[in-house]
Amino acid sequence: MILNQIYVDNIIKTALLEDINYCDVTTDYLIPSDQIGDGKLVSKADGIVCGVEVAARVFEIIDNTIQIEILKNDGEPVHKGDEIMRMHGKTTTLLKGERTALNLIQHMSGIATISNRYTKIVEGTNASIADTRKTLPGLRPLQKYAVMTGGAKNHRYNLSDAAMLKDNHIDAAGGITQAITKLRTKIGHMTKIEVETRDLDELREALDAKADIIMLDNMSPETMKQAVAITAGRAVLEASGGITDETLRAVAESGVDIISVGALTHSVTAFDISMYVK
Amino acid sequence: MILNQIYVDNIIKTALLEDINYCDVTTDYLIPSDQIGDGKLVSKADGIVCGVEVAARVFEIIDNTIQIEILKNDGEPVHKGDEIMRMHGKTTTLLKGERTALNLIQHMSGIATISNRYTKIVEGTNASIADTRKTLPGLRPLQKYAVMTGGAKNHRYNLSDAAMLKDNHIDAAGGITQAITKLRTKIGHMTKIEVETRDLDELREALDAKADIIMLDNMSPETMKQAVAITAGRAVLEASGGITDETLRAVAESGVDIISVGALTHSVTAFDISMYVK
Amino acid sequence: MILNQIYVDNIIKTALLEDINYCDVTTDYLIPSDQIGDGKLVSKADGIVCGVEVAARVFEIIDNTIQIEILKNDGEPVHKGDEIMRMHGKTTTLLKGERTALNLIQHMSGIATISNRYTKIVEGTNASIADTRKTLPGLRPLQKYAVMTGGAKNHRYNLSDAAMLKDNHIDAAGGITQAITKLRTKIGHMTKIEVETRDLDELREALDAKADIIMLDNMSPETMKQAVAITAGRAVLEASGGITDETLRAVAESGVDIISVGALTHSVTAFDISMYVK
Amino acid sequence: MILNQIYVDNIIKTALLEDINYCDVTTDYLIPSDQIGDGKLVSKADGIVCGVEVAARVFEIIDNTIQIEILKNDGEPVHKGDEIMRMHGKTTTLLKGERTALNLIQHMSGIATISNRYTKIVEGTNASIADTRKTLPGLRPLQKYAVMTGGAKNHRYNLSDAAMLKDNHIDAAGGITQAITKLRTKIGHMTKIEVETRDLDELREALDAKADIIMLDNMSPETMKQAVAITAGRAVLEASGGITDETLRAVAESGVDIISVGALTHSVTAFDISMYVK
Amino acid sequence: MILNQIYVDNIIKTALLEDINYCDVTTDYLIPSDQIGDGKLVSKADGIVCGVEVAARVFEIIDNTIQIEILKNDGEPVHKGDEIMRMHGKTTTLLKGERTALNLIQHMSGIATISNRYTKIVEGTNASIADTRKTLPGLRPLQKYAVMTGGAKNHRYNLSDAAMLKDNHIDAAGGITQAITKLRTKIGHMTKIEVETRDLDELREALDAKADIIMLDNMSPETMKQAVAITAGRAVLEASGGITDETLRAVAESGVDIISVGALTHSVTAFDISMYVK
Amino acid sequence: MILNQIYVDNIIKTALLEDINYCDVTTDYLIPSDQIGDGKLVSKADGIVCGVEVAARVFEIIDNTIQIEILKNDGEPVHKGDEIMRMHGKTTTLLKGERTALNLIQHMSGIATISNRYTKIVEGTNASIADTRKTLPGLRPLQKYAVMTGGAKNHRYNLSDAAMLKDNHIDAAGGITQAITKLRTKIGHMTKIEVETRDLDELREALDAKADIIMLDNMSPETMKQAVAITAGRAVLEASGGITDETLRAVAESGVDIISVGALTHSVTAFDISMYVK
Repeated sequence: MILNQIYVDNIIKTALLEDINYCDVTTDYLIPSDQIGDGKLVSKADGIVCGVEVAARVFEIIDNTIQIEILKNDGEPVHKGDEIMRMHGKTTTLLKGERTALNLIQHMSGIATISNRYTKIVEGTNASIADTRKTLPGLRPLQKYAVMTGGAKNHRYNLSDAAMLKDNHIDAAGGITQAITKLRTKIGHMTKIEVETRDLDELREALDAKADIIMLDNMSPETMKQAVAITAGRAVLEASGGITDETLRAVAESGVDIISVGALTHSVTAFDISMYVK
Repeated sequence: MILNQIYVDNIIKTALLEDINYCDVTTDYLIPSDQIGDGKLVSKADGIVCGVEVAARVFEIIDNTIQIEILKNDGEPVHKGDEIMRMHGKTTTLLKGERTALNLIQHMSGIATISNRYTKIVEGTNASIADTRKTLPGLRPLQKYAVMTGGAKNHRYNLSDAAMLKDNHIDAAGGITQAITKLRTKIGHMTKIEVETRDLDELREALDAKADIIMLDNMSPETMKQAVAITAGRAVLEASGGITDETLRAVAESGVDIISVGALTHSVTAFDISMYVK
Repeated sequence: MILNQIYVDNIIKTALLEDINYCDVTTDYLIPSDQIGDGKLVSKADGIVCGVEVAARVFEIIDNTIQIEILKNDGEPVHKGDEIMRMHGKTTTLLKGERTALNLIQHMSGIATISNRYTKIVEGTNASIADTRKTLPGLRPLQKYAVMTGGAKNHRYNLSDAAMLKDNHIDAAGGITQAITKLRTKIGHMTKIEVETRDLDELREALDAKADIIMLDNMSPETMKQAVAITAGRAVLEASGGITDETLRAVAESGVDIISVGALTHSVTAFDISMYVK
Repeated sequence: MILNQIYVDNIIKTALLEDINYCDVTTDYLIPSDQIGDGKLVSKADGIVCGVEVAARVFEIIDNTIQIEILKNDGEPVHKGDEIMRMHGKTTTLLKGERTALNLIQHMSGIATISNRYTKIVEGTNASIADTRKTLPGLRPLQKYAVMTGGAKNHRYNLSDAAMLKDNHIDAAGGITQAITKLRTKIGHMTKIEVETRDLDELREALDAKADIIMLDNMSPETMKQAVAITAGRAVLEASGGITDETLRAVAESGVDIISVGALTHSVTAFDISMYVK
Repeated sequence: MILNQIYVDNIIKTALLEDINYCDVTTDYLIPSDQIGDGKLVSKADGIVCGVEVAARVFEIIDNTIQIEILKNDGEPVHKGDEIMRMHGKTTTLLKGERTALNLIQHMSGIATISNRYTKIVEGTNASIADTRKTLPGLRPLQKYAVMTGGAKNHRYNLSDAAMLKDNHIDAAGGITQAITKLRTKIGHMTKIEVETRDLDELREALDAKADIIMLDNMSPETMKQAVAITAGRAVLEASGGITDETLRAVAESGVDIISVGALTHSVTAFDISMYVK
Repeated sequence: MILNQIYVDNIIKTALLEDINYCDVTTDYLIPSDQIGDGKLVSKADGIVCGVEVAARVFEIIDNTIQIEILKNDGEPVHKGDEIMRMHGKTTTLLKGERTALNLIQHMSGIATISNRYTKIVEGTNASIADTRKTLPGLRPLQKYAVMTGGAKNHRYNLSDAAMLKDNHIDAAGGITQAITKLRTKIGHMTKIEVETRDLDELREALDAKADIIMLDNMSPETMKQAVAITAGRAVLEASGGITDETLRAVAESGVDIISVGALTHSVTAFDISMYVK
């Protein structure tokens, strides 16, 4: 599994403890504990599947004697009706794990699908789609992984692994140049510095101060084009703010390198997958 | 706080540990630790705010000397431009907590807002809107709370506090009647039994077996009307499956008691709130 | 396993971390780590066994190569001298797990045995025995499960899954009727409302307000009989308070539906089981 | 607080998370969050109170603005009707914490009371009462503390801090002498060695091998007297096994130093304490 | 506090739970719980102090009524005899926290001191000292922070925030060029790529493939000088492997940018600090 | 495994969560997940190996299909070039676990090696080497185990399992005699009392008060010899404070029983072990 297995097990256990205070008063009281059954996960829509191994792990954690056959791997396109996974084992295991497995795979596939769709929209331009830190508490690892699985890029993981200068930082340091200079003396050589800019003057100052990445905050595609020309490859340019399905292609065609989209992770539409148990 | 404070603190700590491996390499290296600033949360849209105390708690957990003034309480309507909360304290605290606080309040307000909108749509009918167990791992308490804050109802919390008979349970028991009968001998007197039905015959059997709640699974509004007539108040009727914005009112007018909507929690659109720091 | 496996593993790990700071200075220093032995759990009394799979899990968690044969299942009657479980594996595993396994199975069997005994006492009446929220911190899941295994019923699991109106709630709302009415607008359709009553007038008001369950608090069997007559099936009646071995049958014969007994979980006598290692 | 505060907070949080999945559907929906009330804990029986600060901490953890006045300290005798603690603060805090606070203080006071009673029974003899490792999972720290508070002694805390040689250890080493000799080369100088003996021959061998403590396992008071004479102060003698209220004094009068009683912690009767909220 | 407060509290609680199973059998049994005392931390050597706020937090976590005066801040030089911190509060708090506070501040100050000494050795050259991932389990945040406090730089935090190509990665991809090219298509724009090289040919290939950082693995200072000349500023050069106190200056004078030293965190000598309690 | 397996798994999981936020951006993006490889751990120095099973467990926790062959057991001497362990399994597992496994085994072997070296130095005298509570947060179990594996002794584990009287305790009680007397009435029969003494008068008082162990704090070897003569076997004598490689033998020859050395655990030099992956 690409995702850190320890994290995956922890989030699944959290979900199962939320979902079962002590026992499942329907399943445990009605289904014989030795009844064996078959389950399958089936896609009800078209998109990119993600979280298949995570869903499999839900059932294994409940009962490690279950047999699982994975038919679609993370990142593969699926169509309505496609089987994603087959399970064979105790019926009680299948029924107790069903909701948790679906909640996870639907959320992750939802993220991978929209990430893929946005990536397709900007195809042929210089731009890549990236996520943000606008993630849900406790779910950042699997949300970031789903974005990557969908073909988009991960922005910085958190506040510790890259620097992002906003107004408050720049004001405290006395200006963009001073902020970058001071920061270079403290941060490590593996850490990049991004600067938020609101106009082309700030862009020029950030370029002169050798920012690694420059965010063009809420600029029009036209202004971004000028920014690309001014930059001439001296820094990575990131477009951010107010980008919608409609404006995405135009932004990408401005020549920027990165378009970051918070909605990839903060406003996820679950991807429809059903589970059948026999 | 209505939400269990222990849970709230835990989820905030989880988020802050995700967001800061060891320190904030921008803020901690550039902003003096004794610089004092003011922050405010401002609504950028119209809806129902939820998670205000949770957002406040984010900053208190980082530094309990912060001063917070809450201007809008959970469940209150807000409009674009409304101030929700003011904070006064260390600038580093404000900047380190900003993203986590926003991620929480935007998610919760998104749920409260859609729950409220759906509740408004069915106003004047017999129906209430309810959530489901289609929640995100680790977030069920705050998602269920946000649904309630928005004016909708909470379905069962998890597999332990109410029984829901699906095909597999009914088959294993030998029929609806047998399943309910067997279950009554085991479950406690505080626990209700719901039965999923796919047609009016199953409905009639469930009524005869004295199910507390009967789910009408993917039935047309017309069939639901018949179900309401047949039931005549002997059980609570819950409509479920494939309900959209467009069909919601028609379903409600069929006379059912409950309409459960998974999208309230599995496909949340973040409610737009900004934070300003001076 | 009917009990949530994640919970079971967690409570066992908690116990083993309590019992071994770093190593077992007797066993680890004297018994060769490759010595193989046989263990067995033997009942030293007559009662209902509970926690057999939990005890087995203790040894599996220490060393998953152990072989276990379960001879008595949860809920089965056992008699003095009956073998409950046999284990074959490393002697160090058997000795390190012995105390934790016994502490768990003795506690759970103690609960199942008393629950069963009380259930037997009321046999032939309308009454069932139920537990309460008077449980020990961290042990509620296994205590509630043991009550159910012994043949008694589980009352509400916690403060979130059912409503119980006491004086303070009723006073704040302005009376029983107002409290129930207000609550119905907020709680979900899967949630029942119980009202505590101290006399027959309160009972009548609660009945009129359509309480689902009515607790008869510290009433005499005679008064309870009147309550049963007044109620005439319109609500579930629960007797509570000061019920002892001596009075239990009389209370049950009053015709109430439920008799809740805190002592099932707050004053447990360990059921005597020994472990032998060869 | 004498008990490790970190542990106490953890066990209280565990209990509160068990007791409230997300909110208290009675209290949070009916009692205004700004209603202020008074609570008090009152003893309903005679005994030794224990866990007062722990109970106070329950309310503080829910809401640290609560005001608490402690009237009886851990270890003090209380009589039926005595007030133990007064609380002033939000009514919701009082009601949400009530059950958890009572569950803890009743369990701890139950242990302290029986420990004290047994200690009184052996007063005037050479013997002290001691606990065992027969504790409930997750509760060992507070159970051991309650035993000590009641005036009895704590046996070894766990498998890491003292050695106890049983049959299996002795057999593996080739005899009592060999076992003690081998162990002395490995364990630290702060660690004592106890040996279980079943007859006076084993006692003599253990004495010669310089065991620090010798357990007289299931011996009659008469045999114990002989053991005391043989030992003549060369080791601490511990009586264990099958000791009841009736035999306790006779055992103590045999001259042994320690009488260990598993029931102090494995079969606790909750001490009756009520909480009143106005 | 610059270090993530949530992390700091967690590691302190871990330490205090390790150090006190249930109570401190010396302090809690002998020192009256209301005795007030004064404590101070005093340096017994010359170096850079680090962990002062962490040490203060140990006492606050045990008892938040303690008063603390910090005399030396993290990163300040201290000399033998210098007072670092004064505490006023319950004597039991001071004694129970003493060892945990010292264990933390001595370890952190040890790291800061050696980091500072190495930084001083390379002063005047182009080189900075950096740490590695050779940290102790659970302590990485505070070890990395102590390195930075001592004036050295932090290398990548973990496997998620920067890429480091070793033999296995290069072989699997088919060469340095292919590895970097493939990686660029997957990693985000905030993530740097470092390549390990063993000779100047590999260096040239890595330069052509536009690696961000190139590690010169176990090369002589002479070869490093050639590497610096070949590189001519096109990449950051990191010296690593077998660097000792004696060779450090020579390595630095080769012109490399970064010298990474595992011993900063894997072989820490505690910095001598004493605590006095009156 | 002698070390508590639950603890070992927890510390490994902590380390792996520190080291991988969500995925390994080098290995997971470049190495096919089904590529199989061989790894081995090889000693690069002479010493005592410790933590071999712990290192093996790192890889098993990441992927339990890995095959591991242990060639050197904990406590065995190893020489430069000796193979310690071989692994066969997924290359990604080997690469992701490498650093965590090495960090653990190098630290533990470093402790075992120095513990063994000090034990060798005092060979032939009456003295044993012992550790202290000067351990690193979260690592005490494995540090204490490594000391024992190296042939030295473990001092008390923590503040709960043995009493150590320092100035503050003695002053509060009114003197050494009073302190010991008071403590004996409270502590259990398995708990030893040690007293710190600074001169021979205090030693005499501690002997008369029947302390189990007496610490000779910062005394010269000459004074210690007198202490040994005065004590004449009536108590265990422990030398402590300022002992170096140079003075260790002289201290041991004074006749003391125990020499405790904080540096065994607070100032560990990692033992050099490499991992090779093919």
